[in-house]
Amino acid sequence: MTPDNLIPALRDIVGAANVLTDDDCAEYESDWRQRVRGKALCVVRPGCTAEVAAVVRACAQAGVSIVPQGGNTGLVEGSVPDASGEQVILSLRRMQTVRAIDAANMTMTVDAGCVLRSLQDVASEAGMLFPLSLGAEGSCTIGGNLATNAGGTQVLRYGNTRELCLGLEVVTAQGEVWSGLTGLRKDNTGYDLRDLFIGSEGTLGIITGATLKLFPRPAAVMTALAACDTLAQCVGLLGLAQARLGAGLTGFEVMGRFALELVAKHFPQLQQPLPAASWMVLLEQSDGESETHARALFESLLEQALEQGLIGDAAVAENTTQSHALWHLRESIPLAQAEEGLNIKHDIALPVSRIPDFVEAIDAALRAGFPGVRLVNFGHLGDGNLHYNVQAPEGAAAADFLARHEHAVNTLVYDAVLAHGGSFSAEHGIGSLKCDELAQRKSPVALQMMKAVKQALDPHNLLNPGRVIRLG
Amino acid sequence: MTPDNLIPALRDIVGAANVLTDDDCAEYESDWRQRVRGKALCVVRPGCTAEVAAVVRACAQAGVSIVPQGGNTGLVEGSVPDASGEQVILSLRRMQTVRAIDAANMTMTVDAGCVLRSLQDVASEAGMLFPLSLGAEGSCTIGGNLATNAGGTQVLRYGNTRELCLGLEVVTAQGEVWSGLTGLRKDNTGYDLRDLFIGSEGTLGIITGATLKLFPRPAAVMTALAACDTLAQCVGLLGLAQARLGAGLTGFEVMGRFALELVAKHFPQLQQPLPAASWMVLLEQSDGESETHARALFESLLEQALEQGLIGDAAVAENTTQSHALWHLRESIPLAQAEEGLNIKHDIALPVSRIPDFVEAIDAALRAGFPGVRLVNFGHLGDGNLHYNVQAPEGAAAADFLARHEHAVNTLVYDAVLAHGGSFSAEHGIGSLKCDELAQRKSPVALQMMKAVKQALDPHNLLNPGRVIRLG
Repeated sequence: MTPDNLIPALRDIVGAANVLTDDDCAEYESDWRQRVRGKALCVVRPGCTAEVAAVVRACAQAGVSIVPQGGNTGLVEGSVPDASGEQVILSLRRMQTVRAIDAANMTMTVDAGCVLRSLQDVASEAGMLFPLSLGAEGSCTIGGNLATNAGGTQVLRYGNTRELCLGLEVVTAQGEVWSGLTGLRKDNTGYDLRDLFIGSEGTLGIITGATLKLFPRPAAVMTALAACDTLAQCVGLLGLAQARLGAGLTGFEVMGRFALELVAKHFPQLQQPLPAASWMVLLEQSDGESETHARALFESLLEQALEQGLIGDAAVAENTTQSHALWHLRESIPLAQAEEGLNIKHDIALPVSRIPDFVEAIDAALRAGFPGVRLVNFGHLGDGNLHYNVQAPEGAAAADFLARHEHAVNTLVYDAVLAHGGSFSAEHGIGSLKCDELAQRKSPVALQMMKAVKQALDPHNLLNPGRVIRLG
Repeated sequence: MTPDNLIPALRDIVGAANVLTDDDCAEYESDWRQRVRGKALCVVRPGCTAEVAAVVRACAQAGVSIVPQGGNTGLVEGSVPDASGEQVILSLRRMQTVRAIDAANMTMTVDAGCVLRSLQDVASEAGMLFPLSLGAEGSCTIGGNLATNAGGTQVLRYGNTRELCLGLEVVTAQGEVWSGLTGLRKDNTGYDLRDLFIGSEGTLGIITGATLKLFPRPAAVMTALAACDTLAQCVGLLGLAQARLGAGLTGFEVMGRFALELVAKHFPQLQQPLPAASWMVLLEQSDGESETHARALFESLLEQALEQGLIGDAAVAENTTQSHALWHLRESIPLAQAEEGLNIKHDIALPVSRIPDFVEAIDAALRAGFPGVRLVNFGHLGDGNLHYNVQAPEGAAAADFLARHEHAVNTLVYDAVLAHGGSFSAEHGIGSLKCDELAQRKSPVALQMMKAVKQALDPHNLLNPGRVIRLG
């Protein structure tokens, strides 16, 4: 096998209709943010695990590297090929079978190409909850969620994608199938290969299926908005809500004043139910009993927060429509930012306790270093995860500002993140975009172990080379 | 450095008082079940992470392998040396510092040698809960819990030790320190080294510290006992309790009739509050609101279970004393078994949905194959984890029975476990005891990946050789 006769071999495996070349590859070759465009040798779309394995073996024989791709909604340029025209995109999107639902075991076993929202629906139809929820849920795939250990809005209660997965099926770099589709809550038979593949962004193996946890559907879900003067008050409110609601607290999002001003500017039709404050917190409570019970508990919590001076004002959504409107406000922030122009995104995590100090220090440093800069700060405060984004000064040419300052801004932010015990990639992963950051900022001991693992499992650097960790 | 001058070198590192030889090693050389006794070159007791690293480097230079040891309460012969007299036991027990508690972040950072119960107490004194709980909690160490990914009675709600850990500090096989003590809920910067070390039983690195999750302390904890005629009813009760209580269901233990008969025989002073039934379920509910709220919810659940014919009888503990008495019954089963004589233990996990069929089939097969055999079945049904143990026939010489039949019994049980999609080691790990089972029963693809990872991180097979996976 050589690269020249690889395409015919792939057509033999998956059928000619499922090997795309030339212009047919276009939608697979650029990333969701439209920041990069690669050039693939071809796109291959296997329909089952055995075909994935055969494709990997053929590529391995030809010495051609593979870029696995799910919904291609990633934000770190991890699922598009380089510009060489020599990489094969392996799209999992045709693999969309829900293989099994085990209600008594509260699990479902699914193909990697299933779209996240369809899995939420499948769980719901079975009377249960699959809680993973994030902006791209209408088009991202569960395989991509697993490969990037996606986070989202329910992590506070249910964990990242990692915590939602009990078992995996993976095609190795050797084109073998590891059948690890267990629905077990306890299994201590050897090294944790499952979690090694989760979050490895397609560089160690190709996830083809998963057994996922399901949860009881709450009897009622309540949403509230609360206004705080300071981030320290937001953190105080989080502690109070955790103590009062325990696992009933399923969402705790924070939105800075300027983030909501951008929403008001670009989406004036969206109602903002409370007068502007420095910080707005979106709380979500899930209750196993009833809406009456949930509302009483929620209102009692907010009253206590008012009494303790943690919040200045609050509004509880009266119905599902109001609840959706509150979430829609939150979800409109990235879109409002895009409307406002190019910006620099930081997906960071910190210990919750250190967030107020961090934000105060870094806000001041950015404003001093880059006068006029506008700071868009929002995110999953319950998990310590902020989307701390930097918008060019009003009236400045954003592209020019980014070209001149993006690197310096990133350095300033990421240095401060690490100094505060944080992470420079909370839920978006590394991909190509943050490869240099990883090489510079991860400890040499960790990098050495990562390289050793990569070389052990993918010795010919066949799978998504140049992503996450660069060898050599 | 040679083996001959290693002991003086170790004395230089940790002080002469912390290098034990000859008879002083005895308590470290045999396992908790007193099934094996090894012979160590010495026991070395470092007092800090830097000393652990220096000890590993010295042993590596001398080509002497290391057996890491915490509380030495494991059940699979994983923390005692072989009989060669050439291995060094590295005991973490002197490292008992609680390095930090971060209340707002709900984390604590601790040394690996901290005893589990002391960490429960530290969390409690800080007004929070560290939920890991298991029989050996008075003497096991958190490092050992992490190295074996220990389970216990609260997994249903809070997960295994793996799910309770956010960050690790590890000394590698090269004697370097990986400082991964993050308190972050989200961190996607490279491969999941943390979970690779957790559950690797000291074969990939030596865990020296950890950052652990804390939880809000429940306002009330309730306990109940319920009687079921069949295991299918127990599974039905589990589903109902999960639907009604959600995350409030923090314990769901099952006890077979013969297991409780053994308790009655050997501990007649322990009251059994319900008339004997085929199966007793111990339910625990944790409530964030109040005892009044908890009791009303619990009683409503049990009434519904009675109406649905899932249970025949039930008793809710009226106070903490009664609650402890119910747990004491459950915890007395292993001790009653030991009083009854030698037995064959199986720590298995199955999808909850398959447990009734599995137990019916395997009970019949064992009774047919080994007439008179007595089956002690109990465990964490909420996690699908059974301690399915086999006691010799009444009046038979137990040692003789085990010598003749243990292997055949194991084969029969483990074959059936795998046929039902289960695990032959749910929460006890592999150690030396189940190494052959792992080699025979794990898929060749998984074994090959495990070997590759072991060779990548510990190329000279220095750390706990012969445990978990055998090379070559």
